[in-house]
Amino acid sequence: MVANALKRGPELAAGAIRTKRKDRADRWPELVTAAAELFAEKGYEGTSLRDIAERLGMLKGSLYHYINGKSDLLVHVMREAHARGLRTIAAQAEGEGRAVSLLETMVEAHARYVCTETVFTAGFIEARKHLPPERAQEFVLEERAYRLRVEALVARGQAEGDLREDLDPKVAALCLLGFLNSLHNWVRPTGVHSIRRICDHAVALGIGGMRCR
Amino acid sequence: MVANALKRGPELAAGAIRTKRKDRADRWPELVTAAAELFAEKGYEGTSLRDIAERLGMLKGSLYHYINGKSDLLVHVMREAHARGLRTIAAQAEGEGRAVSLLETMVEAHARYVCTETVFTAGFIEARKHLPPERAQEFVLEERAYRLRVEALVARGQAEGDLREDLDPKVAALCLLGFLNSLHNWVRPTGVHSIRRICDHAVALGIGGMRCR
Repeated sequence: MVANALKRGPELAAGAIRTKRKDRADRWPELVTAAAELFAEKGYEGTSLRDIAERLGMLKGSLYHYINGKSDLLVHVMREAHARGLRTIAAQAEGEGRAVSLLETMVEAHARYVCTETVFTAGFIEARKHLPPERAQEFVLEERAYRLRVEALVARGQAEGDLREDLDPKVAALCLLGFLNSLHNWVRPTGVHSIRRICDHAVALGIGGMRCR
Repeated sequence: MVANALKRGPELAAGAIRTKRKDRADRWPELVTAAAELFAEKGYEGTSLRDIAERLGMLKGSLYHYINGKSDLLVHVMREAHARGLRTIAAQAEGEGRAVSLLETMVEAHARYVCTETVFTAGFIEARKHLPPERAQEFVLEERAYRLRVEALVARGQAEGDLREDLDPKVAALCLLGFLNSLHNWVRPTGVHSIRRICDHAVALGIGGMRCR
């Protein structure tokens, strides 16, 4: 369903020494998930390689089969979050139809992603803050393209007469994306509010408020 | 204008040794502000007392005139953010009038706070994450009261026929408050988008989407 960067495995850890032992279970997906979990729980600075190794029941030294250091995991958490989230969401907003309908589809998909992938959303937000600019470059263009796509849909929705003309498409897009990412702060996948219901509210508030009255 | 906890000074640092030298300039407000700035920039775990002392041009040891340790600063950043923000915002939503008007006033005040007090908003969000539960207690009730007030206004707005009946007041309140706090992620006080304009968008998206069509 989702193009999953984890499946590409540890060859992504450029320069990392890959063990040759074929009988070693590939712990790569677990490693990236544990990193995302710990970044979300304790913050990047508060997470040590020892914490990550402990969560996986590995020795700290074994992590160096996969990565050169903790900062490598920032990139891998980001890549995985992009693969699971942004790319899938953006794809859903392709296709025919009025801009406002595409926006609703996209908001629904984005809200659903944030509500179900809470660990990768929180891990992503934490990783984003700590990623050095030179390593952020590969993500910047994709994120910008996503935001520009939302902006363009808002502008088209205005031209089509569905959305309020007094809104600035850029400010509206920034508000909307910030709102959607903020859901991870309180939504719990096992919470009392169904994800379906939360997504409905996200569409109501996110898009309903932009519609012409 | 704003009830300012900083003015109450370092007696808030329960148990901290207060210097008796009257000629010492009281650095307390600067200290709490520097802590909020650094928590926002580098995260709580990534901030050392040495960083804080350096920003203030003080010796690290001098900080112990004000606090017993770094974790004290979590509480003080929280108190200051509550005093500047939440209490003032909540007060604006008192008074007569239809619930939807009070909600708009409140959303406008909350958005304006987040857009102007970006350091304390970001510092608060970081401090909130790291505050031990036993020290969070003093804030929990006030934050809950604020959320319940928003919920009650949504429910009253529904009863008054202004807001969509299909919305769950609690989910709507959580979405709304999460959205407002998310503004600090991209709004810059000196940015190209005027605060007035951003607040208008916050009201449009936050409340416009709840209105009956």
